[in-house]
Amino acid sequence: MRNSTRSEVDPFIVMDVMEAARRAEEGGRRIIHMEVGQPGTGAPAGAIEAVAGTMRQDAMGYTVALGLPALRRRIARLYGEWYGVDLNPDRVVVTPGSSGAFLLAFTALFDSGDRVGIGAPGYPSYRQILTALGLRPVDIETAPGNRLQPVPADLDGLDLAGLMVASPANPTGTMLDHAAMGALIEAARAQGASFISDEIYHGLEYENRAVTGLELSDELYVINSFSKYFSMTGWRVGWMVVPEDHVRVVERIAQNLFICPPHVSQVAALAALDCEPELQANLDIYKANRKLMIERLPSAGFTRFAPPDGAFYIYADVSDLTDDSRAFAAEILEQAGVAVTPGLDFDPVRGHRTLRFSYARATADIEEGLARLADFMARRERAFPTPAR
Amino acid sequence: MRNSTRSEVDPFIVMDVMEAARRAEEGGRRIIHMEVGQPGTGAPAGAIEAVAGTMRQDAMGYTVALGLPALRRRIARLYGEWYGVDLNPDRVVVTPGSSGAFLLAFTALFDSGDRVGIGAPGYPSYRQILTALGLRPVDIETAPGNRLQPVPADLDGLDLAGLMVASPANPTGTMLDHAAMGALIEAARAQGASFISDEIYHGLEYENRAVTGLELSDELYVINSFSKYFSMTGWRVGWMVVPEDHVRVVERIAQNLFICPPHVSQVAALAALDCEPELQANLDIYKANRKLMIERLPSAGFTRFAPPDGAFYIYADVSDLTDDSRAFAAEILEQAGVAVTPGLDFDPVRGHRTLRFSYARATADIEEGLARLADFMARRERAFPTPAR
Repeated sequence: MRNSTRSEVDPFIVMDVMEAARRAEEGGRRIIHMEVGQPGTGAPAGAIEAVAGTMRQDAMGYTVALGLPALRRRIARLYGEWYGVDLNPDRVVVTPGSSGAFLLAFTALFDSGDRVGIGAPGYPSYRQILTALGLRPVDIETAPGNRLQPVPADLDGLDLAGLMVASPANPTGTMLDHAAMGALIEAARAQGASFISDEIYHGLEYENRAVTGLELSDELYVINSFSKYFSMTGWRVGWMVVPEDHVRVVERIAQNLFICPPHVSQVAALAALDCEPELQANLDIYKANRKLMIERLPSAGFTRFAPPDGAFYIYADVSDLTDDSRAFAAEILEQAGVAVTPGLDFDPVRGHRTLRFSYARATADIEEGLARLADFMARRERAFPTPAR
Repeated sequence: MRNSTRSEVDPFIVMDVMEAARRAEEGGRRIIHMEVGQPGTGAPAGAIEAVAGTMRQDAMGYTVALGLPALRRRIARLYGEWYGVDLNPDRVVVTPGSSGAFLLAFTALFDSGDRVGIGAPGYPSYRQILTALGLRPVDIETAPGNRLQPVPADLDGLDLAGLMVASPANPTGTMLDHAAMGALIEAARAQGASFISDEIYHGLEYENRAVTGLELSDELYVINSFSKYFSMTGWRVGWMVVPEDHVRVVERIAQNLFICPPHVSQVAALAALDCEPELQANLDIYKANRKLMIERLPSAGFTRFAPPDGAFYIYADVSDLTDDSRAFAAEILEQAGVAVTPGLDFDPVRGHRTLRFSYARATADIEEGLARLADFMARRERAFPTPAR
């Protein structure tokens, strides 16, 4: 048996880091995890109790493919609470994580060979899911001057069938404001490209509220998830908002691809939407962590990054320190006991000179990690002084 | 925004039946559900308690993409218990239901435009998932004389890149024995087609043990699930066994398409594997239901079906009664208050003359449904006598 061409998916380079970290931990070392893109916290207590109650009374069989009606209504209400947007619950599709939403959106919108623009750096799975579906990812090399977000001029001549944006973005944490989002929606429309807005990090914002695409247009797909702000990564439940005349098509695809999202996770998600105090307490931890990172990474020697607007990452240009981010990440793990992600996962072209630091874990871990990084960099500087610094 | 060509997925015809049944129930009628393909029972009690315990102690974040190692080991052990097959746990991939396994398998094995053979009648989503992935489903019209299972001669000249079989099959419940499965594996190999064995109904067998493809070869994909025998439809957790040299490829696709199967469902699944007494009690109900169906459907006037070897369906040829199964199902719902599935969902060509009856629910419901069907058919026979019967 042979494998297909489309199955030739790039490995996640961070997996090597995680495997090396695991081996080090098996050997008794304590590793600080700044490589993982998930909260250290679990689902809010209210979600856990809702599951405990429901699963003893209900067989929890298949739900309808679009998700529990009460959950769809509650998500629609969230758009009123967060953005002042009046959303028809019929447009809300509950999905098996944002991963499931990508599969649904790409299938509903694109045919084999279609070109879909994605920002570089960006979430690695966009590229791999598009390839697995027989579509063609088109990397849009974003400029540091644009805080590594695409701008309309970047789309010139790309002949796209679709454009995917993320705000706040992974790995940078930068956001598109109202004007920037609107300009991209218009540029995509002018090119005949369907617009998809990945809003998975909404709720995790530090200075300004994130803008949803739905504040600007109804002619787009919006993807979100319970994984990040709602701290429910492993539950695999997210959602998508689609134009009214796409609901039936998406429903049929969802019936066939997934049957339904996990019922138990939908029960948890519905309750999580009413756990605001616990979720805000989580956010306060990220806020404190972000402040520490912004203060102390530069004094450790990581000076080139844009302060993140949202999410829980800092994406640093380390071209003054290395041109091999994979080796550098391995060195940091070995020497400092801190796991970080080489930029190559997010940007195949320029990522050999970047690192992503996650600050999603407990503040004590972040403090320890920053102290280790400062110590490591000071030792490294003594051993190999940087002439031009 | 326009939708893709590949998103033109056929609707499930049974959805119209279910919607009509729902309206009738809203209007106060009691409907007997012989249309649904899921157990009336929930997850076994041991699974529920495992979840209750774990979710209060563990953040239940992402698992590794291939699934919890303990679950993979326990599934491998099941192959020893059920079939006497010694299976390397590394070959077991935990998936988001068998739906997720189909997506993984088709992506790992086939490229855009590849032809994949599926039996007709068969599970409708095979066709739709293949289409959504840009692949070409090829219906293999199976013969009643072969109990509606494909045989090697059916593959002649089809030029297949893949062959998907199901035993016990949906909608027929018929099985492939050791020789029949072996012959199909060999015929696929001779044609250069990858072989996929859908074994989702294993464990629900009434006369003989179902044969797994792994008893015959390691060069195939086997797909199974916790939805049917383990009575966990809504949890969306299944598994796949792949050749050793495919594990890495499948792992990378799974990382990108799903990140991981639902963590909570994996915890439930691991415990469910040790809930044999409760699951056997469920099986005893299906056994009793099957006996009633085989005895009483013929006296009601549904005479043309093969006694099912497994699963919980009977697929009846009703060509002596109608040539419009959709209208006939609507008539049965309206007149008898029994919901059944028109064959068109399973066989677009011949399904206008077939019906699927499910006996997955409580025995009292099955008895009531059979009584209603007998009464309805007697009234119908008086109104429109069948001359040739």
